[in-house]
Amino acid sequence: MKLQTILDYLAKQDVDVEFLGDPSHQVDQVSGLVEAGSSHISFLSDSKRFQELESSLAGAIILKPEYRDMTSANRLLVNNPYYVYALTAQLLNPQKPPEGIHESAVIDETATIGKRVSVGAYVVIGRNVVIGNDVVLGPGTVIGEGSQVGNRSYFAPNVSVMHDCLIGEDVRLESGCVIGGEGFGFANEQGEWYHLPQIGRVVIGDRVYIGNNTTVNRGAINDTVIESNCIIDCLVQIGHNVKIGYGTAIASQVGIAGSTEIGKYCVLAGQVGVTGHVTIADKTHFGAKSGVTGYIKEAGSYSGFPAVPTSEWQKTMVRMKGLNKMAQKVKRLERELEEIKSQLENN
Amino acid sequence: MKLQTILDYLAKQDVDVEFLGDPSHQVDQVSGLVEAGSSHISFLSDSKRFQELESSLAGAIILKPEYRDMTSANRLLVNNPYYVYALTAQLLNPQKPPEGIHESAVIDETATIGKRVSVGAYVVIGRNVVIGNDVVLGPGTVIGEGSQVGNRSYFAPNVSVMHDCLIGEDVRLESGCVIGGEGFGFANEQGEWYHLPQIGRVVIGDRVYIGNNTTVNRGAINDTVIESNCIIDCLVQIGHNVKIGYGTAIASQVGIAGSTEIGKYCVLAGQVGVTGHVTIADKTHFGAKSGVTGYIKEAGSYSGFPAVPTSEWQKTMVRMKGLNKMAQKVKRLERELEEIKSQLENN
Amino acid sequence: MKLQTILDYLAKQDVDVEFLGDPSHQVDQVSGLVEAGSSHISFLSDSKRFQELESSLAGAIILKPEYRDMTSANRLLVNNPYYVYALTAQLLNPQKPPEGIHESAVIDETATIGKRVSVGAYVVIGRNVVIGNDVVLGPGTVIGEGSQVGNRSYFAPNVSVMHDCLIGEDVRLESGCVIGGEGFGFANEQGEWYHLPQIGRVVIGDRVYIGNNTTVNRGAINDTVIESNCIIDCLVQIGHNVKIGYGTAIASQVGIAGSTEIGKYCVLAGQVGVTGHVTIADKTHFGAKSGVTGYIKEAGSYSGFPAVPTSEWQKTMVRMKGLNKMAQKVKRLERELEEIKSQLENN
Repeated sequence: MKLQTILDYLAKQDVDVEFLGDPSHQVDQVSGLVEAGSSHISFLSDSKRFQELESSLAGAIILKPEYRDMTSANRLLVNNPYYVYALTAQLLNPQKPPEGIHESAVIDETATIGKRVSVGAYVVIGRNVVIGNDVVLGPGTVIGEGSQVGNRSYFAPNVSVMHDCLIGEDVRLESGCVIGGEGFGFANEQGEWYHLPQIGRVVIGDRVYIGNNTTVNRGAINDTVIESNCIIDCLVQIGHNVKIGYGTAIASQVGIAGSTEIGKYCVLAGQVGVTGHVTIADKTHFGAKSGVTGYIKEAGSYSGFPAVPTSEWQKTMVRMKGLNKMAQKVKRLERELEEIKSQLENN
Repeated sequence: MKLQTILDYLAKQDVDVEFLGDPSHQVDQVSGLVEAGSSHISFLSDSKRFQELESSLAGAIILKPEYRDMTSANRLLVNNPYYVYALTAQLLNPQKPPEGIHESAVIDETATIGKRVSVGAYVVIGRNVVIGNDVVLGPGTVIGEGSQVGNRSYFAPNVSVMHDCLIGEDVRLESGCVIGGEGFGFANEQGEWYHLPQIGRVVIGDRVYIGNNTTVNRGAINDTVIESNCIIDCLVQIGHNVKIGYGTAIASQVGIAGSTEIGKYCVLAGQVGVTGHVTIADKTHFGAKSGVTGYIKEAGSYSGFPAVPTSEWQKTMVRMKGLNKMAQKVKRLERELEEIKSQLENN
Repeated sequence: MKLQTILDYLAKQDVDVEFLGDPSHQVDQVSGLVEAGSSHISFLSDSKRFQELESSLAGAIILKPEYRDMTSANRLLVNNPYYVYALTAQLLNPQKPPEGIHESAVIDETATIGKRVSVGAYVVIGRNVVIGNDVVLGPGTVIGEGSQVGNRSYFAPNVSVMHDCLIGEDVRLESGCVIGGEGFGFANEQGEWYHLPQIGRVVIGDRVYIGNNTTVNRGAINDTVIESNCIIDCLVQIGHNVKIGYGTAIASQVGIAGSTEIGKYCVLAGQVGVTGHVTIADKTHFGAKSGVTGYIKEAGSYSGFPAVPTSEWQKTMVRMKGLNKMAQKVKRLERELEEIKSQLENN
């Protein structure tokens, strides 16, 4: 692909690019600065990589305007190189053409299947399911009765979607993820557990990504909702009736207990746990492994268990490190005080 | 369904109900107090929801006798509303009629299949498997050689059960859970790992629930055992030779290392970790994210890492929060002591 | 099997064994000391089990030479009993003979399948896949286009391997694990997330074990690499571009964020989290639940969050436990100091 083709595509996406170099130069794949050759386009992510930039053999490099003079390679000067790199990588790695419906797929006769879909071997599609156009369903995927999948959504192999779930457009579900399982709803009577049928749905917006083996339970009565533009990594647990606001990012192995509402544009780092029945403000960030035990009413960065403002947690962590010294100090103070006391008594 | 039908059903379950209102009123589904209309039956879970109770349009409400006068709706007065709600929800949401055996299911000729079973598309049932009556196996589920599944058990799609596992009656396995995988049994000789064939089984009692993508490893020599009436949430890891006592509840993302025995009626909150080869007393509760590093010999509530009695942990947490102030205090004490010392020397 | 057969096998594996007893004695399975009968061979793992040793009815026992006189059973005296037990258990529990290719398997005509393979029902093998000799693929397993699987590798049911992954010889993948999923690669532009196509592969060496429902994401640009002789337990998350060095063991529910390099012969205990873009020295051990926030440059044992040398962490934990007492001490010191001050003033 000529660099000019990439420049044309970026222009269509309304990206401001200043280009320096030869627009007829050909590239066919993205690559890291170190590994790139003449047929690759690369990018400078941060200033730590200046050395890699200088020695890079990349056919073109995406970087910020302020670094324009640090290389003589073909350059795309842009404000957000990582974003432009993502668009370029998408252009160079288009989704494969639709493969049609594998003859072994079991599709209920009441299901509605869109145009140009790819349905892999041993897919099972239940009663009254609606599948949009340009959808890809990987082999072994199961879509339960009454669920709907929007246009251009992509399901990797062995995904399980239970009944009556609504999944938007351009959603990507990775392998092994389970949408709409019946969650942890039990009443206890004299030590015996009684299951509550979970009659809510899972409703997923558009442009949502859900990683491998992540589980999103259906609502107990009302719905579990994941708004558009959310990204959720692998092995995450989303409890029943949880709501995740627009644009929120959730890293690997996070657990969110039932009925909690996470705001918009939040970031939850890896292995965070959030208790049930609380509300988290928009634009809240939780540091890795933090444990959120209550409402968070103000946007900001929180860490630790129980989670507190990160600045506070960091101070506590410093004090923790100094705890041994502090204990020794206190011991010395005690001793000295005893000496003073006996000195005063002897006077 | 007439309320009278629900009342009759509850009477059969030996539930004491005092009913106020019109028993011929029709309801067809459960609902929350806020969302409910005339055709819904709802319940009051806790006193925080009094406002919702007053304005609720529910056709009937399940609540405690002491709140009898807080609504004029049709009322079922009971001691444990959440339990009675669960029974009612089960009655209003019966399991679907059996769907028979899908023609694509691969069932070994030596397997024994009970009556009224539902076997989904692409289910694989191995040699000498025994499936009880009224069992449901979701599409894509695999049951390995020699395993047995008791009456009325329900497996969601894409469940994997390895060979020679015993699964009781009324067990519910959610999608993606793996029963009887070979766990982390390795010997090390000069840096090389040697796998130990895991020859034990997984034995699961009756009325056990296991959530999405949870993994229960088979025993190394003896069996891994989950006693009856246990409920285990999503993404939980149960190591080889673990024993889980009757009635225990385990929340999401808990990990229990090999050969540990959890007592009866325990509760493990989310993301708890329990080390291997220890015993946990009956009726032990572990707070979220706690890390259990040793034997727990007395029932009670434990939290933190290493887990200690929760009351102790809470005190430590308060002290942690005050650590910065304490450090400042110690600094001041040091300074004052120095002053006193020099004062005494000058005298 | 006669004990002599086991002795011959161990000799072939270059294991030094001193045997005491009757080599013609027959055993057919391994067992624990307590449960063993005459037809079982058992082992003494540690000195805590002397009592079990004395009363054991095992037909033969593997133990260290120093304990030779503690039993009169048939004895195999070896330096590493657990290792010799593993070899013996492997000998007594050989892999089943190959079962051939199930007629329902969908194998692309461009795939290359080795000799003596077992391919279960509803397996899907994509274009240009290469499967070695003596490979076992459990029912429902999916192998994506262009991936390769080395000789003697064993995949349990419902494993998902995406396209273009390289998997070595004697690899064991447990059920539900996902190899080569597209990980958490997103650029953000004004609050909107843009997916980066992940064009790297997953490359897994020889003799690697990966547990149930573990997820290994493919590289963003370069490869995610798991070197030979690594063992990885259930529900672990390996991010894109991670490298795991030779011989490393990773316990359940560990998460390793993108681009981190773990050294050789490391041990990560359960629920550990390691941040992205850092390097961990060879022979590093991380205690359970530790959170690794930076580079680890020296081999050793680390614990806590943020992870510090374990000896340091243990001291801090002791101080934490004493925090309440220390606070009381400080309070007392303050009071006494006040008394001394007023005493001095009154003088």
